[in-house]
Amino acid sequence: MLAKYSTYEETSYLLLYGELPTKEALEEFSTKMRRLRDLPKKVEDCLRELPPHPHPMDILKVAVSHAALYDPDRLRCCREGVMRKVIRIVSQIPTIIAYYHQTRSGQEIIPPDPELGHAANFLYMLHGKKPEEEEARIFDIALILHAEHGLNASTFAAMVTASTLSDINSAIVSAISALKGSLHGGANERVLKMLDEIGSLDKAEKYVLNALRVKRRVMGFGHRVYKTYDPRARILKEYAEYLSNKYNDRKYIEIGKKIEEVMIRELGKKGIFPNVDFYSGIVYHFLGIPRDLFTPVFAMARSVGWAAHVCEYTTNNRIFRPRAYYIGPEYVEYVPIEKRR
Amino acid sequence: MLAKYSTYEETSYLLLYGELPTKEALEEFSTKMRRLRDLPKKVEDCLRELPPHPHPMDILKVAVSHAALYDPDRLRCCREGVMRKVIRIVSQIPTIIAYYHQTRSGQEIIPPDPELGHAANFLYMLHGKKPEEEEARIFDIALILHAEHGLNASTFAAMVTASTLSDINSAIVSAISALKGSLHGGANERVLKMLDEIGSLDKAEKYVLNALRVKRRVMGFGHRVYKTYDPRARILKEYAEYLSNKYNDRKYIEIGKKIEEVMIRELGKKGIFPNVDFYSGIVYHFLGIPRDLFTPVFAMARSVGWAAHVCEYTTNNRIFRPRAYYIGPEYVEYVPIEKRR
Repeated sequence: MLAKYSTYEETSYLLLYGELPTKEALEEFSTKMRRLRDLPKKVEDCLRELPPHPHPMDILKVAVSHAALYDPDRLRCCREGVMRKVIRIVSQIPTIIAYYHQTRSGQEIIPPDPELGHAANFLYMLHGKKPEEEEARIFDIALILHAEHGLNASTFAAMVTASTLSDINSAIVSAISALKGSLHGGANERVLKMLDEIGSLDKAEKYVLNALRVKRRVMGFGHRVYKTYDPRARILKEYAEYLSNKYNDRKYIEIGKKIEEVMIRELGKKGIFPNVDFYSGIVYHFLGIPRDLFTPVFAMARSVGWAAHVCEYTTNNRIFRPRAYYIGPEYVEYVPIEKRR
Repeated sequence: MLAKYSTYEETSYLLLYGELPTKEALEEFSTKMRRLRDLPKKVEDCLRELPPHPHPMDILKVAVSHAALYDPDRLRCCREGVMRKVIRIVSQIPTIIAYYHQTRSGQEIIPPDPELGHAANFLYMLHGKKPEEEEARIFDIALILHAEHGLNASTFAAMVTASTLSDINSAIVSAISALKGSLHGGANERVLKMLDEIGSLDKAEKYVLNALRVKRRVMGFGHRVYKTYDPRARILKEYAEYLSNKYNDRKYIEIGKKIEEVMIRELGKKGIFPNVDFYSGIVYHFLGIPRDLFTPVFAMARSVGWAAHVCEYTTNNRIFRPRAYYIGPEYVEYVPIEKRR
């Protein structure tokens, strides 16, 4: 329903405040988001200085940590202060990603446009021209679908971090650090790499069967929670299909659908179906988002979900401190160095 | 035994490789640590530019993330490459802390001295003069005592992050983010603040009894795992005592011991005893470590423990993905915005 009727801004409000906003509340919230998009000058300067080769998730980690040093609400830990910090981080992440992309491409950075909504503004900062309304809406829906997903690993990393009563920025940085992993946010980028590797429709079936035979992971399938068709994948598949037709370039979607067919035939009974990462890559591709920015875009969308879980958890906080069973050797003697071999 | 006979370098080797090193292996390892202390030029420059007011843990978060961008082993994920990345991070953290302290004090930075061991070199970079051997040894012991402590919150944050197959730097940054919290690494700094607040021995008992009456936390007491006297606190207490006598300044130790006496009398039967943070602050104080660097020093010591847990966990990895029981409302209708109130 949210994907159908809502916007990323409204979904963010819902996640942070636990209820859908009135018209006035949404307007106030959206205005706040637009106002908090700008980066501190020093962070902008630093982005220009960073080397162009690292993974953009590492850049995001640096820049989000860095921006916290200049947050005017830095020392505030009342609810209102924390909320403003959250909205600032959520609003700044797209700016960081777009600025970094411009500087690494040797382009001038494009400041945010306060006339545009969250999704449209990102595409504008990335491409230097206002996106078509339809494409901005598709991107908005992709962001809504990625905004929250229970206690996934990055959200859990944020919660463990926040449970020490560390600050919200630190919790988000932990989550970004976790999302980077190829078992988590890094997957959608790898789906497109796989589609390229396969190259053409006629090679898809053989590729999948071979991968299954040698037990190589087929990217974008299976989920620790969903053992049925991921509802987010269903929506993204529609848009991937739509954009493929619009741009008259059906290579990726055809290979993708073939992979899905073979995978479900072979592993559907084991609960393996396409997950959210499988079709999002194709959608992002047609929206002109560079492949290595897919995971940062995931972070951009999920940031509000991380913050919402942290805010909920810390209202009734208990520090995470799991116990482990020690299974190593016991009573090991300290052997003086000259007697070691 | 390690605190008595070992060094931080040897303890690090033990944690990373699972066994005590031979003389040759230790020498090679220590040499590697000394060689990897230098910071990339850009990170050094960035440290000079950072504002002087934030919490140094936030600086550590930025600088450790930043340094990863220039790590020559950045793209290597073989065991040897990861180990070198780990040793580099563990060796660079002291340099980051000391450089930041020098620049915020308007001093020239003091490059690491390859003649000095890990503990002595840090005190040297911080104070600009070689420490007495005895004090370097006491600091070395404090580092050993803080190097590892099972699945505490910061270690757990590192493991959750690494379980997505994110990189070791990201895992350490998550851990730093978690250690910052006042329920975790931030505690030792607050112990000294409390001692200052009390001000003199005769006010200590009243302070504690009053805190217990109004249920205010007395910093440096109680532990989620230890329900008896924390063995690390026992060792640190000895050195706090020793240094207080050496510098003929017994104010902190006297107040501290009185607090301990009252706390154990009142709460010892509930398993509340001094923890590692209670006496470490006094030790650091006499070693001339500025109070707001206590938590970064904790990070400096614990970094190797974080890395060791991550390396162990990821050899037989499973992504952390806890399930949660949803207890919120079900089947909430999406109310169109004009009908909301």
